[in-house]
Amino acid sequence: MNYVGIDIGGTNIKAGLIDESGKVHKTLGTLTIVDDLDGLISSLSNLLKEFQASANIDAVGIGIPGLRNTRTHRIETSPNIPCVHNLNLEELLSKPLKLPVITENDANAGAYGEWVCGAGRNLQFMAYITIGTGLGGGLILNGALYRGACGFAGELGHVNIDPMGRQCACGARGCLETRVSAHGIVETAQEYMRNTKSTLHSIPHLTAEIIYERALAGDAAAAAAFQDTGISLGIACADLINLLNLEMIVVGGGVMASGKLLLGSAIAEVQRRAFAPAARICPIVQSQLWPNAGMIGAAMLARDRQ
Amino acid sequence: MNYVGIDIGGTNIKAGLIDESGKVHKTLGTLTIVDDLDGLISSLSNLLKEFQASANIDAVGIGIPGLRNTRTHRIETSPNIPCVHNLNLEELLSKPLKLPVITENDANAGAYGEWVCGAGRNLQFMAYITIGTGLGGGLILNGALYRGACGFAGELGHVNIDPMGRQCACGARGCLETRVSAHGIVETAQEYMRNTKSTLHSIPHLTAEIIYERALAGDAAAAAAFQDTGISLGIACADLINLLNLEMIVVGGGVMASGKLLLGSAIAEVQRRAFAPAARICPIVQSQLWPNAGMIGAAMLARDRQ
Repeated sequence: MNYVGIDIGGTNIKAGLIDESGKVHKTLGTLTIVDDLDGLISSLSNLLKEFQASANIDAVGIGIPGLRNTRTHRIETSPNIPCVHNLNLEELLSKPLKLPVITENDANAGAYGEWVCGAGRNLQFMAYITIGTGLGGGLILNGALYRGACGFAGELGHVNIDPMGRQCACGARGCLETRVSAHGIVETAQEYMRNTKSTLHSIPHLTAEIIYERALAGDAAAAAAFQDTGISLGIACADLINLLNLEMIVVGGGVMASGKLLLGSAIAEVQRRAFAPAARICPIVQSQLWPNAGMIGAAMLARDRQ
Repeated sequence: MNYVGIDIGGTNIKAGLIDESGKVHKTLGTLTIVDDLDGLISSLSNLLKEFQASANIDAVGIGIPGLRNTRTHRIETSPNIPCVHNLNLEELLSKPLKLPVITENDANAGAYGEWVCGAGRNLQFMAYITIGTGLGGGLILNGALYRGACGFAGELGHVNIDPMGRQCACGARGCLETRVSAHGIVETAQEYMRNTKSTLHSIPHLTAEIIYERALAGDAAAAAAFQDTGISLGIACADLINLLNLEMIVVGGGVMASGKLLLGSAIAEVQRRAFAPAARICPIVQSQLWPNAGMIGAAMLARDRQ
């Protein structure tokens, strides 16, 4: 059996031809058209047709940022891809393609991927955190993807880390995503740079990647930004452990290329905050499937018709 | 069928003779012996014998504060009742009594009670928050009491509300319980009193109850303390809604005698912070079973052998 897994991001679409064991046989990519539905649909159709030319496809799974309503199968809101707002993308694609199509929140798809064939295999209780431009989360509880009352669960990027903290794009203040994300790391580094000499001052456009490199090279402000970000991540992990009594937290996403720097500080904070008997059984580890967790997870959701 | 539900608190034990529909037919109470196991066991046995004298008991459910391990059935730690530390209370009581005995974390028992025969009947996704001396939580997810990997789940009192906040008895800083609890309200009121004239200054031993009365009577510091506490409660509720996509949050406990003052401020904060589509389907309501939620829930857990 062959499946296509598609991970629609705010910038790029990644698609893979994936077998029933989760192995990726071929990948294709294209830019995401965020504001023209016909354009988006036709680029998805083109990707699928290209896979169909070389293999018999049994089902398609699509991970997409936003709140997907499990009752209506519609994407209720997707701030980064506004053209899918209030849309049943499954219906729209499956009819012309004559294929079963399922959609899922992208971080939920990543959680499913890590659980089915990544770091969380054989566990019953797992959280997946993906740190990129923003921060996404997905939960595996009692051996199943946890979706909540209508599919909106797992929005870990928008749990609070600091009630009076930074303004978040969602409208609230101090969401985890405002600190633990590529953008959050840049803002934190800028705060640390203010009253210190730092090699970061010479860089016109700061990115999390550059800050990471400078942190490794010994820049104090850069190192402090990563340390600080890790502490915020650790507080969120401790909350998840105290609230949900998990067996593992898997952390992935683009920022996790700088994984060890971030995870070390996060794990130390978890030790300070979470209940010891609960923290003891919950390792915090790096994604095994990154950068393909969402794509593989979407394909596995299509396989399992979840 | 008759069940006995027992709610062991840090100060008092409440026990009830409860039928299979959750109706309470008789209640008994005694002081909790926290540091002498033999004394505690014999007071529990005496309560049960008194019920047995008037009715045929089928099973006993006990709610007790602390982390109960579902794998070992032991109470791993119970800071307020140290004599049960690392103890299998079920085994210890069921043999001499010749009755099935189940134990459960007290807030989990309260959640189960509100779900089976209180405010959350027929729901699949619900959180229960009990605000008293401390703050306890319990979760109903996918139509079942959610316990996590080994029974420690639902420790909402120890999710973070302020990373640099007040020192918590658990060792961490800024746990929700440090602000949203009887003790937390007193501390918050004392902060608001510092630079203002307040009728609270004349009171030698402040309690949450007195602060509530003075808030109703127009004392500004007292009102601000409740407002502030409600905001913290609202932040925690918004986090639960964004993370777990619930259908209802039920709030009970001693402090909820002052329910409307606290809930009004909490609900307003949820509107400011939670995702609108998720908040819209999740009313935040007062407990229907308080002060008997834990006792009734424990009996219903015994009924259902959960």
